[in-house]
Amino acid sequence: MLLEHIQCPEDLKRLSAEQLEQLAVEIRQFLIEKLSVTGGHLAPNLGIVELTVVMHYLFESPKDKFIYDVGHQAYVHKMLTGRMERFDTLRKYKGLCGFVKRAESEHDVWEAGHSSTSLSAAMGMALARDLQGGDNKVVAVIGDGALTGGMALEALNHIGHEKKNLIVVLNDNEMSIAPNVGALHNYLGKIRSDKHYIKAKDDLQHLLGRIPAIGGKLAKTAERLKDSVKYMMVPGMWFEELGYTYLGPVDGHDIGKLLETFQQAANVDGPVLIHALTLKGKGYSPAEADSHKWHGITPYKIESGQVVKAVGPPMYTEVFSQMLIELAEQDDRIVAVTPAMPGGSGLLKFAERFPNRMIDVGIAEQHAATMCAALAMEGLKPVYAVYSTFLQRAYDQVVHDICRQNANVIFAIDRAGFVGPDGETHHGVYDMAYLRHIPNMVLMMPKDENELRRMMRTAVDYDNGPIAVRYPRVAGRGVEVDPEPLPIPIGQWETVREGESAVVLAAGPMIQVAEEAAELLKREGLSLRIVNARFIKPLDAEMLQQLAEERIPMIVLEEGTQQGGLGSAVLEHYSLRGEYGLQIRIVGVPDAFIEHGSIKEQREEVGLTPERVAAEVTGMMPRQRQRATGQ
Amino acid sequence: MLLEHIQCPEDLKRLSAEQLEQLAVEIRQFLIEKLSVTGGHLAPNLGIVELTVVMHYLFESPKDKFIYDVGHQAYVHKMLTGRMERFDTLRKYKGLCGFVKRAESEHDVWEAGHSSTSLSAAMGMALARDLQGGDNKVVAVIGDGALTGGMALEALNHIGHEKKNLIVVLNDNEMSIAPNVGALHNYLGKIRSDKHYIKAKDDLQHLLGRIPAIGGKLAKTAERLKDSVKYMMVPGMWFEELGYTYLGPVDGHDIGKLLETFQQAANVDGPVLIHALTLKGKGYSPAEADSHKWHGITPYKIESGQVVKAVGPPMYTEVFSQMLIELAEQDDRIVAVTPAMPGGSGLLKFAERFPNRMIDVGIAEQHAATMCAALAMEGLKPVYAVYSTFLQRAYDQVVHDICRQNANVIFAIDRAGFVGPDGETHHGVYDMAYLRHIPNMVLMMPKDENELRRMMRTAVDYDNGPIAVRYPRVAGRGVEVDPEPLPIPIGQWETVREGESAVVLAAGPMIQVAEEAAELLKREGLSLRIVNARFIKPLDAEMLQQLAEERIPMIVLEEGTQQGGLGSAVLEHYSLRGEYGLQIRIVGVPDAFIEHGSIKEQREEVGLTPERVAAEVTGMMPRQRQRATGQ
Repeated sequence: MLLEHIQCPEDLKRLSAEQLEQLAVEIRQFLIEKLSVTGGHLAPNLGIVELTVVMHYLFESPKDKFIYDVGHQAYVHKMLTGRMERFDTLRKYKGLCGFVKRAESEHDVWEAGHSSTSLSAAMGMALARDLQGGDNKVVAVIGDGALTGGMALEALNHIGHEKKNLIVVLNDNEMSIAPNVGALHNYLGKIRSDKHYIKAKDDLQHLLGRIPAIGGKLAKTAERLKDSVKYMMVPGMWFEELGYTYLGPVDGHDIGKLLETFQQAANVDGPVLIHALTLKGKGYSPAEADSHKWHGITPYKIESGQVVKAVGPPMYTEVFSQMLIELAEQDDRIVAVTPAMPGGSGLLKFAERFPNRMIDVGIAEQHAATMCAALAMEGLKPVYAVYSTFLQRAYDQVVHDICRQNANVIFAIDRAGFVGPDGETHHGVYDMAYLRHIPNMVLMMPKDENELRRMMRTAVDYDNGPIAVRYPRVAGRGVEVDPEPLPIPIGQWETVREGESAVVLAAGPMIQVAEEAAELLKREGLSLRIVNARFIKPLDAEMLQQLAEERIPMIVLEEGTQQGGLGSAVLEHYSLRGEYGLQIRIVGVPDAFIEHGSIKEQREEVGLTPERVAAEVTGMMPRQRQRATGQ
Repeated sequence: MLLEHIQCPEDLKRLSAEQLEQLAVEIRQFLIEKLSVTGGHLAPNLGIVELTVVMHYLFESPKDKFIYDVGHQAYVHKMLTGRMERFDTLRKYKGLCGFVKRAESEHDVWEAGHSSTSLSAAMGMALARDLQGGDNKVVAVIGDGALTGGMALEALNHIGHEKKNLIVVLNDNEMSIAPNVGALHNYLGKIRSDKHYIKAKDDLQHLLGRIPAIGGKLAKTAERLKDSVKYMMVPGMWFEELGYTYLGPVDGHDIGKLLETFQQAANVDGPVLIHALTLKGKGYSPAEADSHKWHGITPYKIESGQVVKAVGPPMYTEVFSQMLIELAEQDDRIVAVTPAMPGGSGLLKFAERFPNRMIDVGIAEQHAATMCAALAMEGLKPVYAVYSTFLQRAYDQVVHDICRQNANVIFAIDRAGFVGPDGETHHGVYDMAYLRHIPNMVLMMPKDENELRRMMRTAVDYDNGPIAVRYPRVAGRGVEVDPEPLPIPIGQWETVREGESAVVLAAGPMIQVAEEAAELLKREGLSLRIVNARFIKPLDAEMLQQLAEERIPMIVLEEGTQQGGLGSAVLEHYSLRGEYGLQIRIVGVPDAFIEHGSIKEQREEVGLTPERVAAEVTGMMPRQRQRATGQ
């Protein structure tokens, strides 16, 4: 075993180029074994083994900066930088992070979780280096999907203009940017920046010289032909036009060729793009066969590739998926829009059933949002299915294009609340705060599967502007569902449990937390009312008026930032009406980033628990009452 | 005069192609005269006269959809669609909007104000058309600057993939995308989509056939040469690679050539890009000479081009500009970053003084933000100068890259609050709500010029993460400034006027409103305290504690959305501490989009006035007190 002797990149550098092949095999074995127990992003990491090995072999991390786009393909990087023994804790609470994490290692210089940030980071680091007279290399590794994100394209454009020395590794693992791969291309890529380049250029000039002299119309064409010599040299035209030296395509699993290409890249002046062709899931046949499924995976059996399946009620995502199909059967206007997440957002079945009404725009959250506004303004009912955390990318488009024009766009916001092992980059804890203050927005959250179905019905029936339903990354409650769910009047809350001592206003899974709190309080002789605040916006003014008249202590329980969320909405509501003197307590996510773990652990960390709610309620009781119940 | 007979596009269609030239002259004359009185976006509109005329001449608006990126270059469109007589009210309260406005005309099908949305809109409209079996044309007009915005590039990528019929007019008025302009290119552009195309292709094949057969290394090169025929046909390679039929470059002021090009475009299957070369300010020599200055202009004298200058204290932008230079003289780490707004953001002098430390990334707010994070993490002090409304584009990057990584990025947020004539697309009324809930953020607003200088000093000294200062689009108060301003302790508010009846918490220009309210109240025997809540985040916990102990009625006065802003922050603060029973009233911008006009009119419309504040205060007084003061 070579692997056990690798504690840091220096150990790697002692190996021969041949031994690197063996090491790659061992790394794959390690990942396949470890992830069979913990789960994680298997396929992307199997695809990037040789690239990572070669980068650490040739360059000097952390002096040289390695920037991994999205950051979920840095497992190999973590292994080579002294973190192998921590892989049993991968993505677990207080364990090894599934993404790049600066607190873990000096080799982790840039964190991500959202896509398409690596080129901007690389540009910043290259600028800082040059302004401060440094001489380190900057290497960004970006997938072909991530490259279509707008901010990556902005950066690509800027980098090409500024001509800083940096290396972009295009990890092309899905052929979504489909080049004409072939021997000639490979050859041309190689000669592009080495001594053969001039020779080949001479050859071409020579060839052109052999075209006989001609006149008339043909002469112009010939002239154009000669002007175009530079175009013909290059397979990566598109990148060359933007100012990059393009190297490739190169087989991203051929260590010899990668070493050669990276060495060339290191000697080029200005930005270089290495186009590496890799196979997601490389070296593990189930993952090779279905790289989408194996992108991020739960624990599995190594031999069969069988995944351990959860039993129980369906996830909210599946309920959305099913209901959307039912609605679309009845209503031609419905189209689904996804920014490259058809699987995660539950749209695969919809796409099968309505291929023309399913629009996957790639990683392009902004474009998706604005396109939805236009679809709506032309009479369709676009359903923008997106994770809460990724909709952050389209905040301006939601404000400026959708809400300002009051377009009938339906948002299906998945992964609202904590998301568990993906951790701090992925939590959906801001959407209530960043959507609620936008005029014309309606924002809902269901308490169970059936209410999600009703809310989708509500959204399709609603013709007064944008309307969003947010739902969590958890299973439903196992309730029976109506085949023909009725819409809910906009802004109407409901009391789901009667009680007199205090009231909890909550939505989604927090209702269950409140119910458990109610049971705890019952033992102490307190009766907790629970209101399903299923409209985050607009609020139920009538119900709030009634609660104010009762002077009942209120707790707003929310799995979202306690700055600017539902709690703030309630406080503002009363303040704007001059209704003072009420006891209103917010229990939400505090002003901090919450790391990876299970959703349960994350809720416990911030106190979104029945115990905390119960304690808050007793704390709000009049003193004599607190004494009576032993507080 | 032809112009006076044009009430709608049908009138235009009655003219001969030759008469269009005359009309263009008249349109320019009209714009130069009208805008000399009202001000407005003169240069962009002078540049787009012929393009707009030709579009309305050939196509059938509103059935055919015209989408103007940014929307400030639609004056000619407005003139040709029956709005000429309203130009005296341009950009005035209740007057003609300076942008495309659906409520004004059926010909206005898509509104904008922010850049780079037009291609997404066009894609949505083309998709909707095809799904609904329509046959209208969709034409998006986008400038070369706007094309570098990430969402435009996302859309460009998607459109090229989907192959819908739509026309993108690239209004290239600054040569920032610098093509090899020349007769051959023009020629190739023309043949690309007409009958000569096939002929030229045949010619090329014929030429290539005349290269004698060869073996060895040369053979491969020759093979590559033959593969490349398609590359050689096209001047707009970069667009062709993305799936567009590229037409151009065409002289955007040559009506004959434009008619020809647009007719060709209308017959192409799939997306077409017309590359039109225009001159900003065309036909008015002062504007031609300095198109930046004349992009958006205040009233001017037609003959001299002399602009009516405002007298009085400097704008906050200028104070920022000066102070940044002073700070940068002392501190090498400071670099300035702008997304294509060096003029508007006051960075031109900085760029002269420190050309290497000024980074203009183009219209790329997202990239700018993330690049700033990387600059900061490498030890620099990036100052991201950006308008409040445009920073919306980078919300996710502020959350995910800057605040989550706690990078020492300084934000200089200009145009905070109402912005006047640009209206609803440009108000900076959301930033407090969308920044305040992000962990690690510090957010400040100065009460005067000197405090802006102190806050910039504070920001440069601060090494614990991101810090922002927001300031309005107004003149300062004319106070004297310290040459060496002292930093302000983070989170420290100050009492700027003593009083006992009630307290106003406010920042920036709202302090002046509060002062005027205090004078009104004084006449009624009430004394109003005013606290300069110069830190929107963090709040001054000590001061809030003291106010709570006094049980003094509070008004939070803010020129920002009353959802999720400073008022909410104060309410949350007390709620989270179990401090109940206080009288706290929010006076802010209501939950609606506020149209164009003067800042004064906008404040009056929503009640950010001394009178309103005074009325709120008296309303909060105990009943007997209200009676005593005659309420």
